[in-house]
Amino acid sequence: MRSADLVVAGARELLTCAGPLPKRGRALADVGLVENGWVASSEGVIVYAGDEAGFLEEVRPGPGATTVDARDMVALPGFVDAHTHLPFAGDRAREFGLRVQGWTYRQLAERGMGILTTVKATRAASLDDLVALTLKRLDRMLLHGTTTAEAKSGYGLNLEDEMKQLEALRDAAALHPVDIVPTFMGAHEVPPEYRDRRWDYIALLVDTVIPEVGRSGLAEFFDVFCEPGVFSAEETRRLIAAARAAGFGIKVHADEFVSQGGAELAAEVGAVSAEHLIAVSDEGIARLAASETAAILLPGVSFFLMMDKRAPARRLVEAGAAVALATDFNPGSSHLFSMPFVLQLGVFTLGLTVGEAVNACTGNAAYAIRRHATVGSLEAGKRMDLVLCDVPDHVSLAYEAARNPVRTVIKNGRIVVADGRRASTPL
Amino acid sequence: MRSADLVVAGARELLTCAGPLPKRGRALADVGLVENGWVASSEGVIVYAGDEAGFLEEVRPGPGATTVDARDMVALPGFVDAHTHLPFAGDRAREFGLRVQGWTYRQLAERGMGILTTVKATRAASLDDLVALTLKRLDRMLLHGTTTAEAKSGYGLNLEDEMKQLEALRDAAALHPVDIVPTFMGAHEVPPEYRDRRWDYIALLVDTVIPEVGRSGLAEFFDVFCEPGVFSAEETRRLIAAARAAGFGIKVHADEFVSQGGAELAAEVGAVSAEHLIAVSDEGIARLAASETAAILLPGVSFFLMMDKRAPARRLVEAGAAVALATDFNPGSSHLFSMPFVLQLGVFTLGLTVGEAVNACTGNAAYAIRRHATVGSLEAGKRMDLVLCDVPDHVSLAYEAARNPVRTVIKNGRIVVADGRRASTPL
Repeated sequence: MRSADLVVAGARELLTCAGPLPKRGRALADVGLVENGWVASSEGVIVYAGDEAGFLEEVRPGPGATTVDARDMVALPGFVDAHTHLPFAGDRAREFGLRVQGWTYRQLAERGMGILTTVKATRAASLDDLVALTLKRLDRMLLHGTTTAEAKSGYGLNLEDEMKQLEALRDAAALHPVDIVPTFMGAHEVPPEYRDRRWDYIALLVDTVIPEVGRSGLAEFFDVFCEPGVFSAEETRRLIAAARAAGFGIKVHADEFVSQGGAELAAEVGAVSAEHLIAVSDEGIARLAASETAAILLPGVSFFLMMDKRAPARRLVEAGAAVALATDFNPGSSHLFSMPFVLQLGVFTLGLTVGEAVNACTGNAAYAIRRHATVGSLEAGKRMDLVLCDVPDHVSLAYEAARNPVRTVIKNGRIVVADGRRASTPL
Repeated sequence: MRSADLVVAGARELLTCAGPLPKRGRALADVGLVENGWVASSEGVIVYAGDEAGFLEEVRPGPGATTVDARDMVALPGFVDAHTHLPFAGDRAREFGLRVQGWTYRQLAERGMGILTTVKATRAASLDDLVALTLKRLDRMLLHGTTTAEAKSGYGLNLEDEMKQLEALRDAAALHPVDIVPTFMGAHEVPPEYRDRRWDYIALLVDTVIPEVGRSGLAEFFDVFCEPGVFSAEETRRLIAAARAAGFGIKVHADEFVSQGGAELAAEVGAVSAEHLIAVSDEGIARLAASETAAILLPGVSFFLMMDKRAPARRLVEAGAAVALATDFNPGSSHLFSMPFVLQLGVFTLGLTVGEAVNACTGNAAYAIRRHATVGSLEAGKRMDLVLCDVPDHVSLAYEAARNPVRTVIKNGRIVVADGRRASTPL
């Protein structure tokens, strides 16, 4: 018998999402469904996930154990948001309003709007400002069921302000239940002061910023925007070589609007993930499928930018790529933080089935940030990160469109959202 | 000085949406924005809406008046959902799950799925069942800011069960703050028992059901699905003539997938509204623009059915049609009830500006169900139906994508949602 201090009892449907990660091909549709499902944990670690008979046989709740009644709920792993740009300052609602009135990118840029608005505001913000903004956003994410989030810098674009963004992530993570996986993205864009001497910026990154950030230990991954007009394939290679030497795992913003072979490059260099992929080539799909590089799709971008073109999710799944979904939360091209809505966009705009979308938002997303040993599925030995949704079945996670179904969130075995609100006294 | 028993104080932005209704062309973008906006009401009727100076000059809150602090909020009229199919029974989540796995309409129909599933379940349901289901759905709508909703029958498809649906609406309306505008839609589909003798069903409607429902007083409008494969233009005309004779206002489901001149017909017969219009013809656009017939667009359908094709909202606005937006809440083709999300779909998928979408969800929606004399804008003399959203500005109603921003809902001068929850003690 195993002891437990927390029991999630009798979920109408339990989606364990168990099985080897990443899930590829037909395995992506398997959510490990258990009707009348029970999950138990001890000190934040799952000791049991399965049916009632197994629970009664194997688990003995300790004195004072907490039981969460899940009878009318669907239980699934806490969502893993594998791609966000959390720690920024400034507001681009006005720019958005002009864009939907038909202003072009050029018209907006001429008035100083676009990504550089965010760079300016982020540089001007204090560390405390960024921490406060990040905490507020993490709260909203948590209320929508996210328990682990990757988060990128990339609006500082110099050593000091990139470090400030990463420090904000460190400080916010210490204060908030959501686990943060930090990514350094000084190669998000060439900053305005280097506009006419881009190679100097690349040299600065390679010679100074990447090694310094590497030594700081503030970021686990390095990410680079490999796209015509941002960083070329050649520049991307040079930056990745420096990042590798500094000890970073590699992520690549690849083929977002126009392919310059970003997916192929990501697979070739053994990147942990290639992200966006709206314009990925056939060759890129094949290379990703044959690699360990996860394909993180961000359907919020096509929605938010009103693009007809979307990432070829079905072809990636059918080729055997390790497909994950994420919000891409950022102020310019995907201002949304709801993983339930991303799951729905996966179904309604990318053609994934509900089961595929669930795994792409949990286990495969954990794989895409290399946290699959500890989160992303409900299995003995993993962290007790679990959400309860008040839907009659898991298909309704998509079928009840545009609704946040998350009522309860458990993080590391603590109840951090109850009845749709931040719990004031965890457990 | 005017007396008031309820004051909404100091909204960061107040959108009065005031002005003549319907709003056409450029007027549709005007939300009547007032910074630091104040709204006061007495016994459920607005006595003032405008700036602080005017409030101080014109309004004297009575003893015991309630003040709602709106300083961090955007205030706007309660949403009017002008097209729903609320009172149905049964669950089509499983059918949805098969559809997103690639099952065709024919494959689903062969297994008895589709609209007839809902007809069967609705016929089998008791009146009490339907009332309970309707109340649950109205609660969700209210939490998303809807204060008035049109609701159609059309899953009974015989006298008894159509009446049962309309009775359910009457009984639910008596128990719930959301005002319901009932529409009789016995001409939603030909029921299965009349499949091989459709003219008998039309005769039944014309000779018996339409006059009976008319005498019952349970419905204000008559709606007919004018679409190839459902009711032809000729059949539609015959049904409308009978409905007019029975005293109904006329609505038309027109040009949803294929045009057979439904919009033109609606304008010609002086219908209150033509609804759907994804496939509306150029001629139909021109006829609507020159008529009093509102164009109700339902962007949830294209989203939910994953259609690339969408209603030509911009062309309708620019031609001068009275454009409104609604959810089309129903179990088969638009299973969503969130007007904030419909507003966002209006922007992200139909190309409306935020201001246009706001008016299309409030004042023009009220016009489309002929309630514009009492609701749809915040002006002295209208009902105090108001929502407060925790967004920094009205553009963020769309910019904060996939989020329900509604925190407070006031219906007829009573606080029915506070801090995002049903208020247990109104006022």
